[in-house]
Amino acid sequence: MKNPLKNHILIDGLQYCNWNRKILEDLWQGGLTAVHVTIVYWEDTEEAIKKIKEWQIRIKENKDIISHAKNTDDIIKAKKNNKVAIIFGFQNSAPIGNNIFLLEKFYSLGLRFMQLTYNNQTAIGVGCFESLDSGISRFGHQVIEEMNNLGIIIDLSHAGKKTCLDAIKISKKPVAISHANPLFFHKSKRNIENDVLKKLSNKNGFIGLSLYPYHLKNHSKCKIEDFCQMVKNLINLIGVESIGIGSDLCSNWKDDVVVWMRNGKWTKQLDYGESKNKSNKWPDQPKWFKKGSDIINIYNGLIKSGISEKNAVKIIGSNWLNFMKNTID
Amino acid sequence: MKNPLKNHILIDGLQYCNWNRKILEDLWQGGLTAVHVTIVYWEDTEEAIKKIKEWQIRIKENKDIISHAKNTDDIIKAKKNNKVAIIFGFQNSAPIGNNIFLLEKFYSLGLRFMQLTYNNQTAIGVGCFESLDSGISRFGHQVIEEMNNLGIIIDLSHAGKKTCLDAIKISKKPVAISHANPLFFHKSKRNIENDVLKKLSNKNGFIGLSLYPYHLKNHSKCKIEDFCQMVKNLINLIGVESIGIGSDLCSNWKDDVVVWMRNGKWTKQLDYGESKNKSNKWPDQPKWFKKGSDIINIYNGLIKSGISEKNAVKIIGSNWLNFMKNTID
Repeated sequence: MKNPLKNHILIDGLQYCNWNRKILEDLWQGGLTAVHVTIVYWEDTEEAIKKIKEWQIRIKENKDIISHAKNTDDIIKAKKNNKVAIIFGFQNSAPIGNNIFLLEKFYSLGLRFMQLTYNNQTAIGVGCFESLDSGISRFGHQVIEEMNNLGIIIDLSHAGKKTCLDAIKISKKPVAISHANPLFFHKSKRNIENDVLKKLSNKNGFIGLSLYPYHLKNHSKCKIEDFCQMVKNLINLIGVESIGIGSDLCSNWKDDVVVWMRNGKWTKQLDYGESKNKSNKWPDQPKWFKKGSDIINIYNGLIKSGISEKNAVKIIGSNWLNFMKNTID
Repeated sequence: MKNPLKNHILIDGLQYCNWNRKILEDLWQGGLTAVHVTIVYWEDTEEAIKKIKEWQIRIKENKDIISHAKNTDDIIKAKKNNKVAIIFGFQNSAPIGNNIFLLEKFYSLGLRFMQLTYNNQTAIGVGCFESLDSGISRFGHQVIEEMNNLGIIIDLSHAGKKTCLDAIKISKKPVAISHANPLFFHKSKRNIENDVLKKLSNKNGFIGLSLYPYHLKNHSKCKIEDFCQMVKNLINLIGVESIGIGSDLCSNWKDDVVVWMRNGKWTKQLDYGESKNKSNKWPDQPKWFKKGSDIINIYNGLIKSGISEKNAVKIIGSNWLNFMKNTID
């Protein structure tokens, strides 16, 4: 299969899959340059270390097609060697708890993205599912400074509005919302208001656009034309340089994992997250984005919608690479 | 030494000492019926379990004068056996992190008090040193319900105002502020506003009055007459039944421990807590409360200030016992 994008940088700014050889081969065959993978959600320090070790083994076992990236040089090198670069991230700050010193430990293990919150409040900030948001805490100020110093990307996906605004203001380096959409596209607690998007981009921040059905207009039935029109509108709002893809693809999991993602260890009752009809099943992906290699459909959709080839290429990867140069290098 | 209070219930609702035989003998000779002791501040799950084990050994080694109390029967039994009852508590929720299931584990190890926060924000609520307070979080609602069900006292010492008000409202059982003073007595982030005190007592909640210098009018130079006048004013405000002593006595520690209490693991910079002149030393105790047995000075001071013997006896212990009957039994 010839890939028309094989000379370009293709980056997916967030995936959480039940990884196996087949899924990794799909990324590789699809020409993905790099993928930011979620290591944990609710796990504590020891559990997070264990999951990182599992990833180290996975990288070793699949070293013909993937490699671990800790900076943009590693990403470029992986591409030259015809491998997919894997970037480690946490979708929560649970592994560091209240301990600033653990950031350096996880950085040394390769962590390059960390969300401050996952829907709920943490010691650092407040999640987007809470009814009130007190913003970045005293500890949160220290964490942001330390993440800046080390070179871990501050990921504001799943954070509340004031927490986002505070973090954008406090951070000396640009921050990311690795996987979400603008609220104007689809009303969801996870999607982002225009004023936040503007402040984010004004400080060279970044949004990776999500393909998770609950973040899309008409959910699983979202049309690619609508998605691409949203991208066009977003370019008008914040400029093209702040925009990439963070698909939030969660493939090959049984339904108990979506229940775990929502409930973790925080409740004995059942929380349904973004499912308004109380479904405990994974939502169906839109038919044009079911696997990592489907990023080519987005590229084609962007071109079809009238976005220039130059800008489409930026959105599917080189913008992410530039953002990473400013944050993790 | 004959103790005029030996037939009464004497309870100190919080102490954090560097325990040794001499300090325990002072409590025993002073006729203390029970003391709530702080096990941890910033410690994680494993560290908290280790500290509990240290207490189990300490109780065994001093079983002639102390015993572990898990309910008020244990406290009464300890008194009959001429022993001081020790009640376990955490001054933070760090040991449970984001895990609701750990409450049952710590309950089974004897935990009967848990603060939701210690100055800073946690996954449950917001501390009194934060600039904004979003109140009790989604996880916090679950934690309060579980603590109610198990019989662990919700301790709001070191919490922010909205977190206090939310917890008072949400909890089905009365809640405690185990060690603080009214704000009208001394302006401090740790002391409590009248409206909170009223709402607390309206729901049969409890405040243990603190002898920690930073919570006292004129700090270390506080006069016992001023302290007892505050108690009289507080009785007028919320009634006598909601009032006890929670001395916050921290004896026999070197100065590095006050630095630890303030900084834990949350900052690489130095935080000075309540010390406005940036002292890294323990403040001097007022001369009339330097050791646990000095509770008799408070009793005498209360009587001298015109408080009835009946009410003074309640304040130095039987009120705490009644509150515990409603919460941990």
